[in-house]
Amino acid sequence: MSFDRLISKIISMKNPTVAGLDPKLDYVPMFLRQCFLDEDGETLKAAAKAIFRYNQMLIDALCDIVPAVKLQAAYYEMYGHPGMKTMERTIRYAKLRGMYVITDGKRNDIGATMEAYAAAHLGTCMIGSSECEPFGADALTVNGYLGSDGINPLLSICRERDKGIFVLCKTSNPSSGEFQDLLIDGVPLYARMGDKCEEWGADTVGNYGYSGVGAVVGATYPEQLSELRARLPHTMFLVPGYGAQGGGAAGIAGGFDKNGLGAIVNSSRAILCAYKKEGCDERDFAGAARREALRMREDLTSYISIG
Amino acid sequence: MSFDRLISKIISMKNPTVAGLDPKLDYVPMFLRQCFLDEDGETLKAAAKAIFRYNQMLIDALCDIVPAVKLQAAYYEMYGHPGMKTMERTIRYAKLRGMYVITDGKRNDIGATMEAYAAAHLGTCMIGSSECEPFGADALTVNGYLGSDGINPLLSICRERDKGIFVLCKTSNPSSGEFQDLLIDGVPLYARMGDKCEEWGADTVGNYGYSGVGAVVGATYPEQLSELRARLPHTMFLVPGYGAQGGGAAGIAGGFDKNGLGAIVNSSRAILCAYKKEGCDERDFAGAARREALRMREDLTSYISIG
Repeated sequence: MSFDRLISKIISMKNPTVAGLDPKLDYVPMFLRQCFLDEDGETLKAAAKAIFRYNQMLIDALCDIVPAVKLQAAYYEMYGHPGMKTMERTIRYAKLRGMYVITDGKRNDIGATMEAYAAAHLGTCMIGSSECEPFGADALTVNGYLGSDGINPLLSICRERDKGIFVLCKTSNPSSGEFQDLLIDGVPLYARMGDKCEEWGADTVGNYGYSGVGAVVGATYPEQLSELRARLPHTMFLVPGYGAQGGGAAGIAGGFDKNGLGAIVNSSRAILCAYKKEGCDERDFAGAARREALRMREDLTSYISIG
Repeated sequence: MSFDRLISKIISMKNPTVAGLDPKLDYVPMFLRQCFLDEDGETLKAAAKAIFRYNQMLIDALCDIVPAVKLQAAYYEMYGHPGMKTMERTIRYAKLRGMYVITDGKRNDIGATMEAYAAAHLGTCMIGSSECEPFGADALTVNGYLGSDGINPLLSICRERDKGIFVLCKTSNPSSGEFQDLLIDGVPLYARMGDKCEEWGADTVGNYGYSGVGAVVGATYPEQLSELRARLPHTMFLVPGYGAQGGGAAGIAGGFDKNGLGAIVNSSRAILCAYKKEGCDERDFAGAARREALRMREDLTSYISIG
């Protein structure tokens, strides 16, 4: 259990980017959307099938230059159980194409219930004497508000199956400070959460110096990103908020260590909807996504040097 | 948007209980489980179908004496997309039988993503010109660590469709204090979260004095339950931790107002597995669940008087 598999991919592709697959049906180009709606009507099933095909084509266009995808669970749940089937199929397809898969579910609960989430997203589930893998991602984002009872149940599955978690610390949104910046004996809550990440991951530090317990730290707070990089030397960062939310590559650089490691930066809409911004033929949506991903790699690596 | 529909049911049944449908396959009696495994093999699909039948029989046995069910999302996700289909079908069936349905998903995110969760669990989703309802619960549990950006996107859907949310404040687990009890200027974090619940719900107070923004407060912390009841006069409590986790009815009484309202107490395993504890024929599992629910009502209402 560590992020070694992810970090190896980042090094070999010289790209600390994760592509966020947060697919609203509106993002799916009409030519693709329509053929599924024609087949199955205006149903959740049709939407889910269209989104799977969209994801598949994006993965094909990105898998040799982007090391990882992050699936935002909300955009799959929104399409009901057919949407969850698309989530499962997308995860399997991305793994088949060699990508590292993060499910962004921000799950949280305690004890046996948290074990159920771990089984669902990172592990397996016994049905009689058969071992079934429900979703099978490589890593899961989680919310630590419930304390160690919510994190420990994940760790044994992570250890057994070499999986990882990212715990929300300092999120990218404007109101993240309402709770996360509150000072407890002079230390903000997000830093306390970060300290716990170091503790939870302590005995899982891998070859690159990072444990299997990472933290979510927003690109929109570059100062806190640098501060946490120094404070949490063994904690890998998942960094949302690049681009659309206003986080720039210069500020993000502070989230990396001296080897250009220790963070992976997410971009969702800018990649998914690059064809809209480019104004190219929508049939070239995957090509536009690839061009945006290359532009982003260029942008990030102009501030850091990897490996 | 308020909890009036829920509170009316509580009053008419004189029962402030919510039955937790947290169905591990192991809980499903063998006679029921086996026939689905015979039909579909040892698959997630077979498990999910067995669980739906189990839920249906429990709902039939409980719906005239228990006002609400709470579905723990983790136990449906554990069975993959077939499990999510069972979640959807269970919600529809419970509503058909007149029950109020809470999805215990502890979801959290920001902005458009939180809107997607709201659409998924409480609202609808447009596919072309057709409005589809993915899961359709009456209320959803959420985690407020991300601040108002994570709660506001829910409120418009809650207003439009008369739905509610319960925000985690003081959870029932032993380590809940690691973060929730931290003092900020002398006020613990859980109370700050509670204050926000009052603020978020301020303009949605219903006929019984409670808003549509409730709070999760564990039965295992009776002192905090009483303290929060006084501090948060418009906030309905969802109280986990009764029974198995050690919370007793006497301690829980402090979570209710002088009219015996303002809280609903969850019991999951004690009801689901009552047949195991009773040692009755497993074919009578639903009867045993009903007997346990009646015993629990008796227990709770010996300390409070409703309406």
